[in-house]
Formats: sequence, structure tokens, C-alpha cells
Amino acid sequence: MNAVINYLRENKEQYLQGLFDYIRIPSISSLPERREDMYRTANFLKQWLLKAGADKAEVYPTKGNPVAYAEKIIDPAKPTVLIYGHYDVMPVDPLSLWETEPFEPVIRDRKIFARGADDDKGQVFIQLAVFDAMVKTGFLPCNVKFMIEGEEEIGSPSLSLFCEENKEMLKADIFLISDTAMISKDVSSITVGLRGLCYMEVEVTGPDHDLHSGLFGGAVANPANELAKIIAKLTDEKNRICIPGFYDDVLEVSKEERAEMAKAPFNLEKYKKQLDINEVCGEEGYTTPERTGIRPTLDVNGIWGGYIGEGSKTVLPSKATAKISMRLVPNQDYEKIAVLFEKYIREITPPYVKVKVTAMHGGYPYVSPIDIPAYKAAVKAIEKTFGVLPVPFHSGGSIPIVSTFEKVIGVKSILMGFGLETDATHSPNENFDLDIFYKGMETVAWFYHYFTE
Amino acid sequence: MNAVINYLRENKEQYLQGLFDYIRIPSISSLPERREDMYRTANFLKQWLLKAGADKAEVYPTKGNPVAYAEKIIDPAKPTVLIYGHYDVMPVDPLSLWETEPFEPVIRDRKIFARGADDDKGQVFIQLAVFDAMVKTGFLPCNVKFMIEGEEEIGSPSLSLFCEENKEMLKADIFLISDTAMISKDVSSITVGLRGLCYMEVEVTGPDHDLHSGLFGGAVANPANELAKIIAKLTDEKNRICIPGFYDDVLEVSKEERAEMAKAPFNLEKYKKQLDINEVCGEEGYTTPERTGIRPTLDVNGIWGGYIGEGSKTVLPSKATAKISMRLVPNQDYEKIAVLFEKYIREITPPYVKVKVTAMHGGYPYVSPIDIPAYKAAVKAIEKTFGVLPVPFHSGGSIPIVSTFEKVIGVKSILMGFGLETDATHSPNENFDLDIFYKGMETVAWFYHYFTE
Repeated sequence: MNAVINYLRENKEQYLQGLFDYIRIPSISSLPERREDMYRTANFLKQWLLKAGADKAEVYPTKGNPVAYAEKIIDPAKPTVLIYGHYDVMPVDPLSLWETEPFEPVIRDRKIFARGADDDKGQVFIQLAVFDAMVKTGFLPCNVKFMIEGEEEIGSPSLSLFCEENKEMLKADIFLISDTAMISKDVSSITVGLRGLCYMEVEVTGPDHDLHSGLFGGAVANPANELAKIIAKLTDEKNRICIPGFYDDVLEVSKEERAEMAKAPFNLEKYKKQLDINEVCGEEGYTTPERTGIRPTLDVNGIWGGYIGEGSKTVLPSKATAKISMRLVPNQDYEKIAVLFEKYIREITPPYVKVKVTAMHGGYPYVSPIDIPAYKAAVKAIEKTFGVLPVPFHSGGSIPIVSTFEKVIGVKSILMGFGLETDATHSPNENFDLDIFYKGMETVAWFYHYFTE
Repeated sequence: MNAVINYLRENKEQYLQGLFDYIRIPSISSLPERREDMYRTANFLKQWLLKAGADKAEVYPTKGNPVAYAEKIIDPAKPTVLIYGHYDVMPVDPLSLWETEPFEPVIRDRKIFARGADDDKGQVFIQLAVFDAMVKTGFLPCNVKFMIEGEEEIGSPSLSLFCEENKEMLKADIFLISDTAMISKDVSSITVGLRGLCYMEVEVTGPDHDLHSGLFGGAVANPANELAKIIAKLTDEKNRICIPGFYDDVLEVSKEERAEMAKAPFNLEKYKKQLDINEVCGEEGYTTPERTGIRPTLDVNGIWGGYIGEGSKTVLPSKATAKISMRLVPNQDYEKIAVLFEKYIREITPPYVKVKVTAMHGGYPYVSPIDIPAYKAAVKAIEKTFGVLPVPFHSGGSIPIVSTFEKVIGVKSILMGFGLETDATHSPNENFDLDIFYKGMETVAWFYHYFTE
């Protein structure tokens, strides 16, 4: 192992430059005009993995963005680790809040600033670097496969079919995923729970064109006011979701488990200070980590209607729209929730406006086992490099495809992520800690070691 | 009078081309980048009025956009009519809904399509044409002054001071304003009531940057959800405004007056069909014309926050903002209402978000007398050209400066407007009926005649 660790340390500048090249391709999956960049990014991965020593590397087209796949089979009798990650990134708006160009990475305060620096280009690059180092030093102890997709940020619409059509090729003993966060730089953790997602769009239409709010205001329903009333009816004063049947399938976590979770360090004052908020706010009867870890929630992700420019315009808008998503917990089913959501919206929409409800995307929640060899190897690897035992952590985020891996391919996933809460993923000035980028490489190398020893 | 009417008819094509030139200058007052165009438009008016025969025409700078002023004093002993109007126009977004370029007027179905075609460039041009025709034919029967401002659509912030500083210059027997609508092409009307306006902006801030809605959703208040709840609390299920004290100064209109108003023709089915709505919606206990004519109201004019692009982004936004305006009736005071609004917003905003309330602009409601010579002259003029007696009409719109004229200069205003409800003022595809454009000129000419006979 010393040779591998030394190789990683000696080549860290080269890996950093590789990551920078990877980041520079603006692979925003939600923008149709970036389609070509998605192919460029997948091809970047293919070439990089071939150079690192993969036996095979391909860009597989799908109905949406392509999947970059690679493998190195050193001995079919040995165990196989499949690395899953995504090369697509979130949009960058509002651009004005970025201190530097989102797709031109810079180092500041020992952090890499760029869209994708953490989520998920930085984290995927840790995996690429370790693969490269292990092959180059001749110490790769098992078979490795890579499946890096380009649609994670839009709900992985093509990956289920890709998995079904390539079941044999994707067979593995464990899926290793670096796309989550640790509790903090001092408190490492392994994510054992992920929330599911149900992402909807609600469009309210009043009159068929914008009206003068003086001539018509007071006599014609205003879709912006009506949309606000609809949203207000989605949650109650205890911050519980009002959609009938929404909680029916929610797995209530036992007192004992909640007591166990409560042992994980959490500093409320620091949390509030970091976000510049006076008070936290969430479902009555639950702590902040519980609210994001084991409880479902509902958020407006975007809302717009009428005049949103500078100054004023006395308009009664024709339409108002909101993007609304719900995070789900075991055993909620996003398809069922989408139906309940639409039914409730139609019930509470008054007759003097029209409403259109669209299901954008969704995914199931996931719970990872902690008694399997891969989990134990991840614990040992983190303890080795970070010096502390990692805590099992229920994340509020979603990686919808993880439950699909289990259903379609029958393989469990280990979520060994290296992000930090302060990384501003999905936000302006996304960043990734440079020390963790390097430490992450050594951790993954040790994971291979313990998993195969 | 025959000479004047004939001159107007013979030169109508030339007046139409003059209006087109006037429209082509994109004088959007709410956009700072149009500042130069505001001066260009004011100068256009100056040159046009000098050519038409004004003794004096000037562009007066203000702190904001300039005022175009002109006058022709034929005899100080004769009565003086001051024409007030505005050369600024509303923004044109959403541009995609315009069938033709907003600042390149076209004739379609005997209507002029362009931003400002009605409001207020078309209506002001009627006044310019009549002045030109009366001077050219030598039949101008009284003194005429023009005060055309460039900030009406943003609440006339500079005009009060301009009026105070130029009291002597602006002295007149009556202010004549063409900036309102008639009930329909067949049912002419004179506006005798205008609503006041109180235009506010509410900005709700949660965390100091956008957050990942998975990692933080459910634990941190979402400003878009909170803004929706705030807006929902502004009106109740009877569509009454919930701001304490809001109705205190509202002048309740007597049963007799309401019965009189109810005689004006109004076709609810046609109204709904024209707007493509299933039902009207407004304050319980009032008819549609009453809801816009004699009752105050509250409308969201714009709302935005979070991700408003294509596709989806799982963001918990840092901020959400709404532009909210209230139409006021006698004897509500917009400055008092702004204070009550802000107080109530602060009361209903929960402690876990911050709120900023900004008063954008406002104006007092206005009621015009119907027993003065100028009103009677307007009635006769309309009857002469349209063939029917005009109905006194309470408009839902606001021309905030009208009450200022009375307060500062001590002059009443006659609101003889030639718009139609179908003109889409403030909306895409604004238009102005070509026949009414020409008929309006003859009406104004007859107004001068009856007012001075």
C-alpha cells in the first residue's frame, strides 16, 4: 500500500489539473443547449480511463445524455467494485453571485471553487485518481467498473433502462458511490440513508393574457395570489404536509434509533450562524438532523409570475408557476406521492383559475446496510486516514438511482462521500476542500485494501 | 367648425404617420437604460408642438424624466385648457407574446398595434392633432397648454414638484386628460372616478445563500414558501383585504349611487369570454363594475424566487420577492396604507425569516365633478360624434397625479378618454382602434367648441 499512497502523493498536482480540465466542460444537464458538452464530458472520461489502464471504455448513448462506462477485469474470480458517479452539474444561476467564473476552477483558501468542484466532478475524480494510481503501481487488488452518468441532477431518467439492458456488464459485489457529504472535516461519516424525491411543477392560469391591474384588479382572480394560497395550503402551522395520504407509508423511526442518531455531534448555534438565520424551522417534534434525515418535506424550488424586472408594472398576470419538490423517506413511493399531490392541488384550486400539474422527476429513498464487508471496509479506511471512526448518517439529499441499483442489478451501494456542508453544492461559489480531495484518494485506496484483504 | 373637422379628415393619414414616429421611440420609463429615449420623446413633442403653432415649447428637466411643456396664448382674457398626458410607456415583456414588434406600429383589423398605441401616445396624439388643426384653420377658440410627462407609468415621482415650481405657468380653467377608456365602442363614457395606488415590494430572506433543498429542506425555512404564506394572509375567503385599518377611510357608496351605476350596460358573459375565465372573482357583496369602480383591491403584480429556468433544480432559495399593489378608493391615503401594509407584513412574518418592505410609489384616488361647464361640454362633444350620451364611469385604474393637480394648482380635471377595454394596455399586443383615433379628434374639437361657446 505504501507504493500506492506514495504514487498518489507524488502525482497530486497532475490529478488536480485533470480535475480542472474535467470541470471546465460546462455539463449542465438541465439545459438543452449543453447537449454537446455532455458528450464531450463523457468522452473526456472515456479517454482518461483508457489512459489510466481500463481494458475497455465506452460512451453509451441513451435517450438522454450518454453514460461513460469503463472496466478493468484482472481476474473474474476476484471481487468487483463498481464506481457510480455523475458528470453532469447543476445550473449556475444566479451568475452574479459567483465570485469567479463557475467553469474556470480557482484555488482560494485551500479550496477548489467551481460548479461541480464537489458535486460530483471532484468526488468522481478521487475515484479516477485511485484507479490510475493502483493500476500504475501494479497493486489493483480487484476488478473495477465505472458507470458515470450525465443525468443525475435531473433525476436519472435514462439510467434505469441502461441498467436493465446491461445487467450482465454491470454485475458487481458492491457499488461504491462518492456523491455525499461527511458531517464535518473533524467528524467523518458514511451515509446510510438517502431521501427520495418527487419534483412537480404547478402552473396556475387566470385570464388568457396579462391584464391592467387597475382596470381588472379586484374583479378577476389573480393567478399569482391564487398560487400563493395554494402553496400556503401545502403545509400547516406545525410544518406538516397537508396532502391527504402523504404520511401513510412513512416508516416511523423507533425511539431507540432516534436516540442513537442523537449521539452524532450537531451544533445548532454553528448551524444557524453558518446560514445566517435567526431560527431553524421544521416539523414539530423533531430535531434538525431528524428533519433532514428521517422526515419527508416539501419545498418551493422556484416561483415566478408577472413583472419581475426593475421598478414597477401594474399588471395582473395571466400565469404564475411554481416548481415544488418533496423529499421522501422509506417507504414512500414517489409515483404514488405525485398522484396524491396532483389530486390535492386540484381539490384546493378554486374554480376561477385553471391549473396544470406536471410530474418532473422522482426517485425512491434508500437505506444502506451496515453489517456487510464493504461497509466495514469503508469504516476502517476512513478511520485510517481521518483518524476517527465514521458515524452512520441519514442524509437529507437524494440519489434516486441508488434504489434502482438494488432493484435491477441486486447490488447494495456504499455511500462514502467526501463533501462538506459548507461546499455550497447547487449554489453559487460551489467549492471542494483541497485537503479532503487528497485525503479522499488515500481513503479510497485503503477501502480497496480492506475490502479485498 | 366645419373647417376644423374637414382639416382633420383631410390630414388624418399625416397624423397617423406622426403618431407612428412618436410610438417608435421606446420610452419605457421603468428601465434606466431608456433614459436617453425619454429625452428624445420629450424633444419630439417640443418640435411637433412648435411646428403646430405653439408660442412656446420647452423640455423641462426634472430629477427623473423631463416634462414636455408648450402653450399658445391667444388672449389672456379667454379660458385656458391644459392638456395633460404622458409620453412614457410600460415595459414590453413578455416579448414572446407580441405578434409584431412592440415599437414598430402596424395596422391590422383597423387597429394600431404597438406599445403606447393607446396608453398614452395614441390618446395624446389626438390632442396634438386637434391643436394643429385648430391653429392651422385659425379657429382655436381659447388658450391651450400642454404638459406631457415621462413618469406616469412609474407613479409620476417628479411631477408634484414640477407643478409646485410652475404653478403660475400651469394655471388653467380645466385640465383635459385623455388617458382612460370608454365602456365600449357603442357605449361611450366619461371617467368620473379613479382609484388611487399603493405599490409595494416585499422581499423575504431565509439563509444567506441558496441551499441544496435535500440537505437543508425541512430544517431551514424556505423564503418562497414563507412569502406564499404571507401573500395568502393578505386577503380572506371573502376576498377582503386583511390589513388592519385598511378599510377605515373607504367611502362607502350609497345604495342610490350603486343603483345608478348598475344602469350602465355590463355583459358578464361577454366579459368572461373576452378574458377566457370560467368565473369572475372579487369582494363578496359587490358586482364586477363595483369591484373595479368603487372598491379597493390588492394584487400581486410580480413574484419570483429560486430556480425559474427550464427543467428542475433542487434549490432552497435564499430570497423570494413579490411586487404587490393596492388600488385605493376615496378617501384612502396611499401613504397611510403603505404604513399599515408594512406593519401587517412585519406582524405576519415568522421569526425564522427576514423581511424587507419597500414603498415603490403611490397616488390618491380622484373623483371628478359632473356639474361644471367643462364636464357638460365633454358630454355634448361625445354625444355629437358618437351619437350617444356618455355614461359617468368609475374606472379601476389610477392616474395618481390627477389629485395633485387639484391640491397644488387648484384645477379640476376632465377625464375624456378614448381607450377600449380590449386595447390590452400594459399587455402584449397593445392596440388602439383606428376609427376611434379619428373620431376622438373630432370629439376633442367639439369639446373646444362647446366649452367656449
